[in-house]
Amino acid sequence: MWLRTSCDLTFDITVPTPFILMLRPRSGVQQWIAREEYRLEPMVGVSEFTDSYGNLCQRLIAPPGAFAVYTVADVRVADQVDQAPGAPFVDIENLPDEVLSYLLPSRYCESDRFGEMAASITVGHLLGYDQVKAIETWLRTTIRYDIDSGNIPVSAVEVHFRQSGVCRDLSHLGIALCRSLSIPARLVVGYLYHMEPMDLHAWFEAYVGGRWYTFDATQVSLNGGYVPIGYGRDAADVAVYNQFGPPAYPISQNVRVELLG
Amino acid sequence: MWLRTSCDLTFDITVPTPFILMLRPRSGVQQWIAREEYRLEPMVGVSEFTDSYGNLCQRLIAPPGAFAVYTVADVRVADQVDQAPGAPFVDIENLPDEVLSYLLPSRYCESDRFGEMAASITVGHLLGYDQVKAIETWLRTTIRYDIDSGNIPVSAVEVHFRQSGVCRDLSHLGIALCRSLSIPARLVVGYLYHMEPMDLHAWFEAYVGGRWYTFDATQVSLNGGYVPIGYGRDAADVAVYNQFGPPAYPISQNVRVELLG
Amino acid sequence: MWLRTSCDLTFDITVPTPFILMLRPRSGVQQWIAREEYRLEPMVGVSEFTDSYGNLCQRLIAPPGAFAVYTVADVRVADQVDQAPGAPFVDIENLPDEVLSYLLPSRYCESDRFGEMAASITVGHLLGYDQVKAIETWLRTTIRYDIDSGNIPVSAVEVHFRQSGVCRDLSHLGIALCRSLSIPARLVVGYLYHMEPMDLHAWFEAYVGGRWYTFDATQVSLNGGYVPIGYGRDAADVAVYNQFGPPAYPISQNVRVELLG
Amino acid sequence: MWLRTSCDLTFDITVPTPFILMLRPRSGVQQWIAREEYRLEPMVGVSEFTDSYGNLCQRLIAPPGAFAVYTVADVRVADQVDQAPGAPFVDIENLPDEVLSYLLPSRYCESDRFGEMAASITVGHLLGYDQVKAIETWLRTTIRYDIDSGNIPVSAVEVHFRQSGVCRDLSHLGIALCRSLSIPARLVVGYLYHMEPMDLHAWFEAYVGGRWYTFDATQVSLNGGYVPIGYGRDAADVAVYNQFGPPAYPISQNVRVELLG
Repeated sequence: MWLRTSCDLTFDITVPTPFILMLRPRSGVQQWIAREEYRLEPMVGVSEFTDSYGNLCQRLIAPPGAFAVYTVADVRVADQVDQAPGAPFVDIENLPDEVLSYLLPSRYCESDRFGEMAASITVGHLLGYDQVKAIETWLRTTIRYDIDSGNIPVSAVEVHFRQSGVCRDLSHLGIALCRSLSIPARLVVGYLYHMEPMDLHAWFEAYVGGRWYTFDATQVSLNGGYVPIGYGRDAADVAVYNQFGPPAYPISQNVRVELLG
Repeated sequence: MWLRTSCDLTFDITVPTPFILMLRPRSGVQQWIAREEYRLEPMVGVSEFTDSYGNLCQRLIAPPGAFAVYTVADVRVADQVDQAPGAPFVDIENLPDEVLSYLLPSRYCESDRFGEMAASITVGHLLGYDQVKAIETWLRTTIRYDIDSGNIPVSAVEVHFRQSGVCRDLSHLGIALCRSLSIPARLVVGYLYHMEPMDLHAWFEAYVGGRWYTFDATQVSLNGGYVPIGYGRDAADVAVYNQFGPPAYPISQNVRVELLG
Repeated sequence: MWLRTSCDLTFDITVPTPFILMLRPRSGVQQWIAREEYRLEPMVGVSEFTDSYGNLCQRLIAPPGAFAVYTVADVRVADQVDQAPGAPFVDIENLPDEVLSYLLPSRYCESDRFGEMAASITVGHLLGYDQVKAIETWLRTTIRYDIDSGNIPVSAVEVHFRQSGVCRDLSHLGIALCRSLSIPARLVVGYLYHMEPMDLHAWFEAYVGGRWYTFDATQVSLNGGYVPIGYGRDAADVAVYNQFGPPAYPISQNVRVELLG
Repeated sequence: MWLRTSCDLTFDITVPTPFILMLRPRSGVQQWIAREEYRLEPMVGVSEFTDSYGNLCQRLIAPPGAFAVYTVADVRVADQVDQAPGAPFVDIENLPDEVLSYLLPSRYCESDRFGEMAASITVGHLLGYDQVKAIETWLRTTIRYDIDSGNIPVSAVEVHFRQSGVCRDLSHLGIALCRSLSIPARLVVGYLYHMEPMDLHAWFEAYVGGRWYTFDATQVSLNGGYVPIGYGRDAADVAVYNQFGPPAYPISQNVRVELLG
């Protein structure tokens, strides 16, 4: 399917503020970006770099006053998410080098603390994809998805304590559980067609059967329409925008995903 | 200035043909891409990667029949090319690691063969920017710019032997001369506003005074309007398209650069 | 000064166990490795890779039974650690791309939680090196250095709660405080000459005045003799060994640092 | 087998001369470095970096006077080189991204000029390993291996014209022929046990059947004992030492390979 995604952000800036933006989806195995717009108002000097996760990031200094970022992309994505019941666990020794860092604990995914819980959730399941599916199902049925539970990222330990969270929180807990089973897992931030209410979304991927697969505990069934923008170990690595200095929260954030033709 | 660049390529494919495309300008210090389109007809699966020079490359298999690539970009570039008479030569030991490979001879820039010629061209000039400017002037006044001199890249040695060449050939000779003086130099392929006749263009950059500067022996004076698409050691690294198997030359190639607003 | 460092580890392995070792100091700005030994008993197949922090890592499967790693290195390091009172804070926009990730919160350094504390510790100090020195002094005088306080890494928040910790814990808190001031900071694991009792050590580096500087809250005064082995955002990234599957703690760990000549 | 390799180089330096050394074999799939020495006389400041081919390189400024580099390594390598008759050609679309650059023409391997010759040499052979073996055999029986034919690298075109060359020259021609068939190929510089006379050696690798295989047209039969030091597209990328400024040839070069135990 072809989707038109857009995200407009407006900030009220008081002092010149360094920003790192990560709003540029990349063409890859899963999607093709046929058209993209990326405007800043006012226009300022920008430099772009690729971070160690492969994300395209833009650095700039936002000047005082209203500062707006407008992005639009026309993207072709799969109609269905790939699913692979039975896809096997990959032995550590056979993981590609670049996947190894997704086994380690990270800011919001304290995988060193979840070994027993993960074992208990996945008991009786085939090693690999089926374990991750069991974790996703457990999250969906156990942790309450509460879109009002707050803007500040909390870690897997805290999510488990609260028993509720936003999409990012459920993903953090899912990632921590996977890693504690030696399954590489990463956070994805992006768009999802048909989200209600529409906003930026977060889900997770796990590496089984020799590739990354998509998991999302917030959806009853996995349909297509996922448009990844950024990848990372957790929300500390993947932020649609990072700013430094006195905080400047967006005064408006407008996200849309439409089906094209 | 804001420019709209476009390049449309159509191929007549006889057997399924692997392509690597490099048609996606990146936002960077020198330019900002505010809007981009990148369409394929027919649409095929594509994966994108970043090569070791930082270029965004797309891999695909073109199916038999007509195969077209349409690209458009709205780009903000400087009104003037930065020039820096007097900018000093950078001692080898102070060059950033990632610049070192631009000192080495490469397929079309046999810098190991041009030491004496480079010394003689630049005698009496300050080390650094002024040496490169002397090389650029020498190229402009010595090597005939002949846009009909052929499609097949030839190396600096051959360009020097023929005393004529297209933009790419003059750049190869300029790069070889710079490197023989231990000045890092690289080939740039891209668009140039106001080119006559309009086509994709090639120029070169040299690293002096702590950064890359633009040089172009085909233009009487350096104005703004340069839109880099790809960088590399020479034309072997930077090709707008690379294909493998039986050659499929473009049956049409349409390049435009317009001033916006 | 020339130092001979060695670290011998012996494990009692019950099932074939994947390991990632990080015991190979690299020659760099700060040190030169003139001689190195790296033996495994029994010898097994090993592959080496460089992680995203530049560390040389070795992957292998330890077979059941006793498994030993013997490493020796002859290293030249500075007699004195570089210190630079007054070295300025580097504005975010001037940080090199590869340093940016050291500004983000990480598993054991929840820098998003320490903004006010860091401001209060560093009040009245020049921005940059002097702020970090104030943090180091504050750690030394406030958090009790307790080498028996446990093997499991705890995070900066927990260290602050306990008010005591091992070298790694003090470093984690120091890093979190630096990052909350937008000063990049990273964990270093390695050897320190004259440590009492001798063991592997951990300290931290902060990026001010255009380069990384060494800080160590466990030492009354900073002398030379630091031999870095690995760098990372925190202990989740830098582990002398990482193993997967049922834990196999070292049954012996023998660390030595001698002065040569 | 366990080998002790050593290479000692002495230069007579007249003016401070920047060097880039590449004398440090890396532990990898094919070999394990159990012990290494790397001494400089006089000792000077060195920084180490990894180039885009994965080689460990050292940068330094050699001071006027005698300057010596002493390297020793104890290495475990396979007793036999892997051979794989029948290993298939890998379709371009299935090559890993990082292998693609080994398909392009380079300074000394003008693969764009050898398409017909390569087709004729390999006619009747299975696509893949068997084609490369046919090229290796053709080189061995056609191009005279002449260890006195000169120190200056010459390109594949020139080697073919002369019909003779050193190990590096035969490899360059072999690489050019492979690439013209869309088989990735790269130059390897290193040690070979039992070479007569003993010196640094060069051979080539081709990527078929999903991995790199070793080929060497200078040896009647491929035995084990190969110790790679550096990899690259050709001799422009892989030089045991690169120096800049007035040339300082080694006044002595002493290479040894002994069998241990």
